[in-house]
Amino acid sequence: MTNSITCAGSIALDTTRTPFKVAERVLGGAASYFSLSASHFTKVYASSVVGGDFPEEHFGLFESKDIGIKDVQRKPDGKTFFYDSTFSFDFYHRQANRTELNVLGEFEPKLGEKAKKSEFLYLATMPPSKQKDVLRQAVGRKLAFMDTIELYMGEPYRTELLDVLSLVDGAVFNDAEARMLAEDANLIKCGRKIRKMGPKIVIIKKGEHGCLLFYDHHVLPFPACPIEDIADPTGAGDSFAGGFLGALAARNATEPKIEDLKVAIAYANVMGSLAVEDFSVNKLVATNKEEIEKRFKNYCEMLRI
Amino acid sequence: MTNSITCAGSIALDTTRTPFKVAERVLGGAASYFSLSASHFTKVYASSVVGGDFPEEHFGLFESKDIGIKDVQRKPDGKTFFYDSTFSFDFYHRQANRTELNVLGEFEPKLGEKAKKSEFLYLATMPPSKQKDVLRQAVGRKLAFMDTIELYMGEPYRTELLDVLSLVDGAVFNDAEARMLAEDANLIKCGRKIRKMGPKIVIIKKGEHGCLLFYDHHVLPFPACPIEDIADPTGAGDSFAGGFLGALAARNATEPKIEDLKVAIAYANVMGSLAVEDFSVNKLVATNKEEIEKRFKNYCEMLRI
Repeated sequence: MTNSITCAGSIALDTTRTPFKVAERVLGGAASYFSLSASHFTKVYASSVVGGDFPEEHFGLFESKDIGIKDVQRKPDGKTFFYDSTFSFDFYHRQANRTELNVLGEFEPKLGEKAKKSEFLYLATMPPSKQKDVLRQAVGRKLAFMDTIELYMGEPYRTELLDVLSLVDGAVFNDAEARMLAEDANLIKCGRKIRKMGPKIVIIKKGEHGCLLFYDHHVLPFPACPIEDIADPTGAGDSFAGGFLGALAARNATEPKIEDLKVAIAYANVMGSLAVEDFSVNKLVATNKEEIEKRFKNYCEMLRI
Repeated sequence: MTNSITCAGSIALDTTRTPFKVAERVLGGAASYFSLSASHFTKVYASSVVGGDFPEEHFGLFESKDIGIKDVQRKPDGKTFFYDSTFSFDFYHRQANRTELNVLGEFEPKLGEKAKKSEFLYLATMPPSKQKDVLRQAVGRKLAFMDTIELYMGEPYRTELLDVLSLVDGAVFNDAEARMLAEDANLIKCGRKIRKMGPKIVIIKKGEHGCLLFYDHHVLPFPACPIEDIADPTGAGDSFAGGFLGALAARNATEPKIEDLKVAIAYANVMGSLAVEDFSVNKLVATNKEEIEKRFKNYCEMLRI
């Protein structure tokens, strides 16, 4: 058992269109953002799948950050998951232009020996049956977190999603997802309801408005780091999750106390704020421990009254 | 010169309809909420106007909280400002059913000798020309804050509004107002733009999502106190402002430093959270220093990482 993190989810090629720039077929996907974010804190093993069109240089990038990619399956005859989207002028809305699941559609996650032993597990958005499969394989896990999307809250996925929820220790959803899952408008009520579905730690992300942390009897609101110039909001949520679990892993907090969770939330906000300052994973790659620590210190100082 | 606060604005009779209860012709108006909130911190002088239908007991209520009401004009032949509104099931939307300005329409604010000498001034929402009139009379003021509504950001009011903005030290707007005034979608850009219009301290309120404080080169986000059961959101913004200026006045912070502003923001969030827990001004009246201090301590503790 080690304090590494295993992350299962998508690796994508994204075409992202903002009012200011278009980035074509750049590295994306939940597992990419999560891994590159968490890699600043601890060893990460990624489990995913890519096609023959996936640029070799991206593998080099992961390896340069010491991210384990042995469980990233390569399907030379297939194509990588592709997502083309356009953000509105104020970044509040995103329109999907094209979603090609490609090799991700038949992804059968298979964890290697090292990945199985990680104490920390992140189940990025996947069909709930795949998440359950990963949970089953991750025999060393002591703290498992999950994400999902609204699609899987309806039938035929809902029953299996509730099953996964009952098996994980934590969930990180955005506000729309939390409302849909809990069927309530008030986010505080939603968080409490989701905790009753299984996960003892629930985080509801609210984008620029920060997040709510539910733990025990606590409901703790935290603001996001203020960002004046957003380049590309893609991946903010998975980078947030990477900072969160990365910080917990670095502290060996397999049974996190409220103090651990607060520190982890601060790092989560830091990593989310870094991710949106450049396109694709560029800023997650370019940043370093010094910049992260500086932003963390500023965040804590800002909230100290 | 004293560290009292003078507040000029509306006193209303509100009929408020929520999915759970209807409260008819209860005490409302910006000056009521502000004064009752700030009265927990310092002496407040209210300047407003009411009609012959205004219940005598409300005067008694203000007096019981040591709020100076000599400058609340009584027009026995007129009727008090009346506002009838309905909240949506999730409290996110409010529909005006009826707005009768009545005596407020011809309100000519006139500050008495004591009110003129207050070092702290709050200009609640009024036509900008009236706000300017109060500014002119408040010769003892050292720190003046203002609020306004979207109506006054358009012509024929806009020029005069910009004039008032250039004369005050601080502004407290909600997100929609800030966006309309600054003509930008990004709230951080809005806050910086509004500071350039005059006020050196700008607060943008975001309801349940807390607020942004702009001061000097700082942009500080603060969450709202999490409230699971809202009874009536009416007056939250003016109660917030009352807690904010009240705390500054209690600290004699006529030239507030960032530390003063953070403490004031914390009390602002506390008073806003109290206000919404009951209808009308009921909770502001029922609460006491002990409850306020407890909530303030919890708020600071919650944000301490």
